[in-house]
This record gives sequence, C-alpha cells and structure tokens, in this order.
Amino acid sequence: MLYKNNLENMLFEKGLSKTVKKGTILQREGDTQLKSFAVTKGLLRSYIIDAKGKEHIFMFAPEDWIVGDLYGKALKQPTRLFIDALEDSEILEINPEVEITNELALKGLEKAIRRAAMLQNRVLMLMSATAWERYQYFIEIYPDLYNRVPQKMIASYLGITPQALSRIRGEWARSKK
Amino acid sequence: MLYKNNLENMLFEKGLSKTVKKGTILQREGDTQLKSFAVTKGLLRSYIIDAKGKEHIFMFAPEDWIVGDLYGKALKQPTRLFIDALEDSEILEINPEVEITNELALKGLEKAIRRAAMLQNRVLMLMSATAWERYQYFIEIYPDLYNRVPQKMIASYLGITPQALSRIRGEWARSKK
Repeated sequence: MLYKNNLENMLFEKGLSKTVKKGTILQREGDTQLKSFAVTKGLLRSYIIDAKGKEHIFMFAPEDWIVGDLYGKALKQPTRLFIDALEDSEILEINPEVEITNELALKGLEKAIRRAAMLQNRVLMLMSATAWERYQYFIEIYPDLYNRVPQKMIASYLGITPQALSRIRGEWARSKK
Repeated sequence: MLYKNNLENMLFEKGLSKTVKKGTILQREGDTQLKSFAVTKGLLRSYIIDAKGKEHIFMFAPEDWIVGDLYGKALKQPTRLFIDALEDSEILEINPEVEITNELALKGLEKAIRRAAMLQNRVLMLMSATAWERYQYFIEIYPDLYNRVPQKMIASYLGITPQALSRIRGEWARSKK
C-alpha cells in the first residue's frame, strides 16, 4: 500500500481500486459526479478542450499524485476537465462519503495549501517564464516523466510550441553534458 | 470588524492593524519574513517582475481579500512576490504565531481548497481563454474593480495587451446596452 499516511488511508479506505487500460477516459467535460483518483501505478492526466478543439493539459498524475477537478468540486459545477490514462494504470477512486475528522482536516489543510502553492507557481510560469524556464519547471515537478510522455503533451502542459520544446531539449541535453 | 467568522477572528486576533498610503510597498522579492495581509478597506496587489523588468500582476486584493505568497510559505523560500497598495488602505497583518486548532484547520481547509480552485481556473484561463473570456473572468472575480484599477494593470493580470483589453471593453460596453 503506497498511501502510508493517515490522510490517504482515510480518504481511500473503502475507496474503489481499479485497473485501467491506457486510453481509458475516466471523466469527461460536463460530468456532474466529479471524481478524484490517486495513482498507485501508471499515469493519468487531466486536460480541457477549448472552443477550437485544441487540448490543453492541466496536470500529469504519475505515481503518488491525486487528480481531480477542485474548481468543479468547490463551486459545485459540472467539470471542464477530462481525465484519462496515458499508461495502463492502477488507481484508487477517492471515497466521496468520507467524514472529515479533525485529524483529516489538519493534514488536508497542508495538502490543500501545497496544491494552491504549486498552482500559484504555475500561474506565474504561464505569465512570465521563458521556454527554458518552463522546461526547468517541468523537470523539477515531474523528474521522471520526460521520456514517458509524448513531446507534444509536455509542450501543451507548458504552454509552448512543440518546436520551442524540441529546441530547448537540445540545449538542455548539451548543458547537462 | 469585517472578519466575522472564527477563522479570520483567530488568524487576525493580535494581528497588526495598519493604515497604509497608496504606493506603499509591503513586501519585496527576496524577502524571507513572508507576510500575509487581509484588506479591510482599500486595495492591495501582488506582482512579480520578470528578468526583462516587466511586471506581471498575480492578484488584486480589494476589501475582504487576503494576499500573501503561499508558495514561499509552503516551501519556506524567499518570496518572488512584491505586495503594494494601489489605494490608501486599512489592512491587518496575519499573526504568524497563531496556533492551528482543529476548528481553524476545518475552516482553513475550505478556504485553501477554494483558493486552489480559483488558481486552477486561472491556469486554465491563461492556457486557453480568448481576450473576451478573460475580461469576463475579471468581471466575475472582481465585480467592482474595473474602474478602480488602471487598464494596463488589468491587462497585465489577464495576460493580454492593453490594446486587446481596450477593444474588448468597447465590445463589452456595447453588448451590455
């Protein structure tokens, strides 16, 4: 069991354990029963599709990550986020009936603040970072994903063109030699 | 006293009440003693300055908002955020010594999840929204700010050019007639 701390134990106890094949869509835009998934093995992602049909990747969720639509949950709105599996994966669906005890609240508070902090960083990156800084950001957040995810998806996550990403990866590889 | 609920009462009791003049800088990039401020009257903002010297506005904080650097706090790093006063303001500085009780944790959890939800929405906006949608987003989040803040600052917050904002505001005004 990957989830050793109390928060995860409690959130996922009686949660639904699932094995999903690569390509499985777990949530679609417009769904009203919002779900959150913890990844124990494999890789999920969340993304939106804009009015022109273009995909924008909001999050990759490899092992130990949790993915879900906080906005839809907090504002009780249908989701905008698709969630699918980029690899064959083993996941746990969070039990929405779990009672928030005091202990859970304290640990959840830490986790929620950290999630907000990461999103603050992402906003600042999207507003101001160069392609080089964006790639550095990606490597920091997801140190083992750069060979597991297609380049065009990394570019989508970072808000740069695949061409810019390809150029940066070349410079990056040379700078690490 | 604006802060009626227990969370704010407890966070701000023994907090430092201040009156600050328009233009006062309350926090600078590189500061290590990170501060959070609640606005009781007036208007603060937080922003970064990028490597080229360009400002990017992370947040406006009018009455009832709290502004601070969650990332610096969560990761115990010096801040990247400047915080200054856009109007003469009355503010409360959060007491960093406050003990997180169970009750505080529960209320804080709600607030932290909501902040993360808003930031999720901002990330998706910065990745995919048209200038029109961005302006709509601004009006929703800050319904009474559009005449209190210089246009170029609204454009900076939304990640569009002042020219695009000016065009959108014209269309917006006509659409509301």
